[in-house]
Amino acid sequence: MHRHHVTVVEGVLDANDTIAAANRADFDAAAVTVVNLMSSPGAGKTMLLERLAPMLDGVALGVVEGDVQGSYDGDRIAALHVPVTQINTAAGFGGECHLDANMLRSALGALPLEAIDLLIVENVGNLVCPAEFRIGEDARAMVISVTEGEDKPLKYPLMFHTADAIVINKLDLLEHLDFDLDLLRANIVAVNPHAEQFLVSARSGEGVEDWRDWLLRLLL
Amino acid sequence: MHRHHVTVVEGVLDANDTIAAANRADFDAAAVTVVNLMSSPGAGKTMLLERLAPMLDGVALGVVEGDVQGSYDGDRIAALHVPVTQINTAAGFGGECHLDANMLRSALGALPLEAIDLLIVENVGNLVCPAEFRIGEDARAMVISVTEGEDKPLKYPLMFHTADAIVINKLDLLEHLDFDLDLLRANIVAVNPHAEQFLVSARSGEGVEDWRDWLLRLLL
Repeated sequence: MHRHHVTVVEGVLDANDTIAAANRADFDAAAVTVVNLMSSPGAGKTMLLERLAPMLDGVALGVVEGDVQGSYDGDRIAALHVPVTQINTAAGFGGECHLDANMLRSALGALPLEAIDLLIVENVGNLVCPAEFRIGEDARAMVISVTEGEDKPLKYPLMFHTADAIVINKLDLLEHLDFDLDLLRANIVAVNPHAEQFLVSARSGEGVEDWRDWLLRLLL
Repeated sequence: MHRHHVTVVEGVLDANDTIAAANRADFDAAAVTVVNLMSSPGAGKTMLLERLAPMLDGVALGVVEGDVQGSYDGDRIAALHVPVTQINTAAGFGGECHLDANMLRSALGALPLEAIDLLIVENVGNLVCPAEFRIGEDARAMVISVTEGEDKPLKYPLMFHTADAIVINKLDLLEHLDFDLDLLRANIVAVNPHAEQFLVSARSGEGVEDWRDWLLRLLL
């Protein structure tokens, strides 16, 4: 008796993960290391990149800027002679509060991948949704500023849980705040004991070298 | 000859607006004034409410706290003997990065509406999506802190455009920042010339009375 076999497809990727894998293949083919950089609005991602750019001698930086609209951050990065591609989620992507793999894919044609060693994708400022979408990155970094309160890892755990590096920024303001840095760091460890923590002031430059060294290790 | 008439339904509300109208009817029936309070994570919404609560003699305050998870802010408000209901978007609402009318409706049964004059809904910390969902509020207030940068009204225009009151917080930190307050205020006016602006330090209490007076005028 002939027996019908039912083919069960297991482990099907959702559409975002399928496109993220295609991005990943393109990045591998061009030997580009990709970092997904996330934070609240105003935590200091762009200023951190402004500090980082001149510290990368020999490593070719490229940046993708994700914003709902405008190119305010992109203009700041372009002024440093770093290749920048802007993704505006309001133009064709429904004003989304995050980047996803398909949005990044739509920008790949405009990126000189062969000329880039390290591509940093500055996501839309938001502590919730960007963490839900893989974009084909090698690693995730997030910025939390000391003006935002010690409780943020507990209130936005997915973002903190999925970060490989957590940059604690605006350390220059610490002396003017009622802020318990040890409590923030303990709350981060409670949500993500594996993330590397960096203490930084993007404004003064303090500590940025340590984060730079973490990025350079990703390229090895 | 019999002629068939086609009924065209115009101006159909979407599901969120339909539910927002039902919330509005319940608030009207109980004579409750409702304010939707929004900001980035860490801008100081909860501390502003902590400052406000003791300043409202005679007006009964109630608070709804919206968070992805946890009740960290709700616990702070409850400590002031203010009735608080917590909505966690991770529990049954897919971890959404905003409140919508249906989420607020699900909380109404737990609220002593007849005993409340002013209900403040502290939305999830996010400058994008909360602005897209009416919840049946009388007015919208948002908080922007001076640590977040002057460019935020231009980068997150919907939030600023739809706010009736904009509270500029953390003024006590101004002297320690490279921050152009006039530029922030001009950027707000460019996006929303009608919003009332309040200069506040929730930490010191400076300026909170002016925002309190704006709230009290809503009750008239």
